[in-house]
Amino acid sequence: MSFDYINALLKKPTSRTPIWIMRQAGRYLPEYRATRAKAGDFLTLCKSPELACEVTMQPIDRFDLDAAILFSDILTIPDAMGLGLYFMEGEGPKFRNPIKNLKDIKKISTDLNNDLSYVFDGVSTIKKSLNNRVPLIGFSGSPWTLATYMIDGGGRIFASTKKMLFNEPETLHLLLMKLTQSVIAYLNQQIVSGADSVMVFDTWGGVLSEQNYLDFSLYYMEKIVKGVKAQHPNIPITLFSKNGGKYLTHIADTGCDGVGIDWTVELYQVQQEVGNKVAIQGNLDPAVLYATPEVIEREVKKVLSQFKGDTGYIFNLGHGITPDVDPENVKVLVDCVHTFSKECR
Amino acid sequence: MSFDYINALLKKPTSRTPIWIMRQAGRYLPEYRATRAKAGDFLTLCKSPELACEVTMQPIDRFDLDAAILFSDILTIPDAMGLGLYFMEGEGPKFRNPIKNLKDIKKISTDLNNDLSYVFDGVSTIKKSLNNRVPLIGFSGSPWTLATYMIDGGGRIFASTKKMLFNEPETLHLLLMKLTQSVIAYLNQQIVSGADSVMVFDTWGGVLSEQNYLDFSLYYMEKIVKGVKAQHPNIPITLFSKNGGKYLTHIADTGCDGVGIDWTVELYQVQQEVGNKVAIQGNLDPAVLYATPEVIEREVKKVLSQFKGDTGYIFNLGHGITPDVDPENVKVLVDCVHTFSKECR
Repeated sequence: MSFDYINALLKKPTSRTPIWIMRQAGRYLPEYRATRAKAGDFLTLCKSPELACEVTMQPIDRFDLDAAILFSDILTIPDAMGLGLYFMEGEGPKFRNPIKNLKDIKKISTDLNNDLSYVFDGVSTIKKSLNNRVPLIGFSGSPWTLATYMIDGGGRIFASTKKMLFNEPETLHLLLMKLTQSVIAYLNQQIVSGADSVMVFDTWGGVLSEQNYLDFSLYYMEKIVKGVKAQHPNIPITLFSKNGGKYLTHIADTGCDGVGIDWTVELYQVQQEVGNKVAIQGNLDPAVLYATPEVIEREVKKVLSQFKGDTGYIFNLGHGITPDVDPENVKVLVDCVHTFSKECR
Repeated sequence: MSFDYINALLKKPTSRTPIWIMRQAGRYLPEYRATRAKAGDFLTLCKSPELACEVTMQPIDRFDLDAAILFSDILTIPDAMGLGLYFMEGEGPKFRNPIKNLKDIKKISTDLNNDLSYVFDGVSTIKKSLNNRVPLIGFSGSPWTLATYMIDGGGRIFASTKKMLFNEPETLHLLLMKLTQSVIAYLNQQIVSGADSVMVFDTWGGVLSEQNYLDFSLYYMEKIVKGVKAQHPNIPITLFSKNGGKYLTHIADTGCDGVGIDWTVELYQVQQEVGNKVAIQGNLDPAVLYATPEVIEREVKKVLSQFKGDTGYIFNLGHGITPDVDPENVKVLVDCVHTFSKECR
């Protein structure tokens, strides 16, 4: 099999610019909302391999996308660690037993793959269902991002996590090390189950100062890259730190294959900075999907025309698609990326 | 009078590094919570010159701060435009009559200073109360930031504002131009009433791509700088775009005297970039105030030691102080900045 998405990450020739969309299986799709209603609640949807497969396939059936991504939550690992993940309608994720101190961290088991078997079952179910139409992306949250949820339980100030970072850095490092071990085992098992590529989402890396980002977030993502490459040297791996535009040269040095970027950096500058080392994924402002088809086409062309070359670039939004977008606009986006990227060559 | 805060902005000699703290009159102070309770609700507190003066003075009485900042809300201008600002406990600001279209924008009056007289009364009351102990900072929200609240009513996706930006840029520009006129008149009248310096807060500039930031946010802030300087050439003006680290050279080119920076950029790099043009204000991570006194001192020294020279730098947090900080830690911070900045010389 030869897939443009995989080839772009490995800098092999592609027939056109591949595109997938972060959170492409999501609430903007009426068929997703129907499956979600059938499941009853979000966690049941995540934990049922059949339903997770159903929603993963929905955007693939509807649009000409170049990759599927496992439908799951980024907090499956802390949940398997026994923190008791739950969701209240209209609020962010919460944990029944958040991490409070060193004692809590010492108790955590890192050997979680038995408890996460529903994820691997989901991967193999999806892989079978895809039948090689497009490649499948597996994923995990980054250790730093998982830690912020485990210690603060969400929110955007990260008071408790940062308090630990400043007062007890070694305690936080122990948690991050344990998370790193679990993430490596988790991603490797997703690959064994059928994932063709994996991605690490570092949603909250951008709230750290530079040195803290390097020490508490990127250090562990680099270990993950090495831990996955040691087992699966040919599987491409992508790192994405939201608001991490200023750290891209460091990210590119980890040995990853691709870096995700948001729309607050310019693609042509990113290509100049790291395009010789890694593939680049991004970076349309998700809000462009609220605009008219004409404006969407104009904005897509603005992004696409910044990248020079026939491989090493994957089109995506700079952040997840929002729930109130019209699916028709997504079709405009996907088709425009393919058409215009062929015209350019 | 010679104030370190003003001298630092104008790059005249200072006796030590001045410090003030964004949102220094706020909920972390028990005396603030008492005045707030006495006022009944937040808007009454803002609209009473005596109570606004009372809370403005509280941190000045408690700590050795180098400047006072007018206690007010950034949304006074849209409120005076008739949008009906209100606050629900525990939620962000809301408007009864948000902007929906061009017709709404055309109706808006920009001649607001009569309706904003409570702000100017507050400024003169505070100025009298300060009795030249420290200088007084006046402020406004940036046009782009005000527009996001007026159109979307808060939130972090800015769906309606960005929809207007992409589909009807000229409609948004009309609103931004009207806001700019009002902000210029507002800041000039604050200066006439006694403000020694003014600051523009661009809380949401950082959610824009580079070109959109330049066109929809900075373009109007530059007009504000010129509009204030035309009337008051000697009053220093500071611009602060949250998450605007990558736009600092553009910000420094507006003719402003100072730029605010958050903790995701390194002070020494900012000094190299724009330190020859403007003074710099920032940039301790507000979460450091959750740490122990020893850690606060260590982190303050890390920031302070990055700046070379005896003027052109004002210590501050990189964002507003959070409500659950212990005031004792603020004392540690303020005193450490003064002591260490003298020791360094």
